[in-house]
Amino acid sequence: MTTISDPENTHGHISKQYDHELFDIRSRVLSLGGLVEEQIASAVQSLMEGNVPLAERVIADDYKVNSLEVSIDEECTQILALRQPTARDLRLVVAVIKTITDLERIGDEAKRIARHGIDLASHYPKRNQLTEVEQLARLVRALIRQALDAFARMDVDSALQVAQQDRQVDSVYENIMRQQITYMMEDPRLIPVCLAIMWSSRSLERIGDRACNICEYVIYYVKGKNIRHISLEQVQQDLLGRGRRD
Amino acid sequence: MTTISDPENTHGHISKQYDHELFDIRSRVLSLGGLVEEQIASAVQSLMEGNVPLAERVIADDYKVNSLEVSIDEECTQILALRQPTARDLRLVVAVIKTITDLERIGDEAKRIARHGIDLASHYPKRNQLTEVEQLARLVRALIRQALDAFARMDVDSALQVAQQDRQVDSVYENIMRQQITYMMEDPRLIPVCLAIMWSSRSLERIGDRACNICEYVIYYVKGKNIRHISLEQVQQDLLGRGRRD
Repeated sequence: MTTISDPENTHGHISKQYDHELFDIRSRVLSLGGLVEEQIASAVQSLMEGNVPLAERVIADDYKVNSLEVSIDEECTQILALRQPTARDLRLVVAVIKTITDLERIGDEAKRIARHGIDLASHYPKRNQLTEVEQLARLVRALIRQALDAFARMDVDSALQVAQQDRQVDSVYENIMRQQITYMMEDPRLIPVCLAIMWSSRSLERIGDRACNICEYVIYYVKGKNIRHISLEQVQQDLLGRGRRD
Repeated sequence: MTTISDPENTHGHISKQYDHELFDIRSRVLSLGGLVEEQIASAVQSLMEGNVPLAERVIADDYKVNSLEVSIDEECTQILALRQPTARDLRLVVAVIKTITDLERIGDEAKRIARHGIDLASHYPKRNQLTEVEQLARLVRALIRQALDAFARMDVDSALQVAQQDRQVDSVYENIMRQQITYMMEDPRLIPVCLAIMWSSRSLERIGDRACNICEYVIYYVKGKNIRHISLEQVQQDLLGRGRRD
């Protein structure tokens, strides 16, 4: 699992217990991230292989993601109530609360992909129909990995790279959509298979969007700047030459 | 617009300014909610009428939703930093932060529906293809209205009703999916129209899910209990006979 490093922020409170709590929520986000990565990997594998037992395991294991998310969320609220963090510490807690919401929803998308894996198992897609989905899945999994790395190291440059790479995800996704519509129109018997592929691809594309959200929280934490709804070019320009806050 | 009432929580801090800030974030959530409701209404209308200028307005107006969300989010972080709220006040701020994220994402779904409105305008769907979508939209809009009312009054019973009614949304949604697949298979020329209807219906169904999320935050605020990932029956049983916290 990715380990936490953040040389400019060792927290360094008089209360070592408080330092430990802040370290702990960050480290638990990475555990949740690891769990969610496994869920995506298994969901995609179940889709590729039409592996029903694996898909069922993904669906059954979703509760693990949910309960870890609830537990971290409660820990964050406790820290807000008891430690009353300010500045950078406050931004960390807020960033963690938002990140775990996205990770939990990524878990839901993995569950949806697994359900489509079950549908596809009885429909036998043409092997080449799945090639591009496999490519999309590879890109999205790399994106999540990099987003979690950016979170572990609180690294703005890495976070910005994720946003850039998400454009490639969107372009592969658009290709898949067009391709499947063509297949459907050529042979309506393929409609159920094509739809399962389209829905799964949409889930993967959404996972990519959520990886970008996580990167936005990293930038919010480090720079104290909310960059949601701002174009990538604008963000790069704004951050260039600006120092860190606090 | 819905007005705020919460007889059991007049805040009543020594600092009237602090009371005002807490009132203000709640009231701004309702403004955001109102804006999002208008976006859904216009998006659905653009879909039904194939009204391209209206759809374009929805897409162009999305920035209003985004900037109001960012502004409320910043106000919440300010309150956390400067007022260091505890107990019920802290839960209010956390509930507001989460609610506005869902409202902003509902705005994104409205934008997606508007885009499908533009697609449909050039494809002329059969009028009866849209009847059930219209019904789904009616249900979902009522759900959002009720979720915002539950938030305005911080009313747990209303919040629970929303979760119950979301089941009806899911069932109408499933019907639409099955129906559109049948249409597609009968006449492949209808595929682009059917897909636009399916994607729009999926957006509406997701809006219903997010209305339920908002209701979960209402229950979290009033009861101090995180009910995410718990079945509706379990929640009703748990809340029965339990008093309010704080």
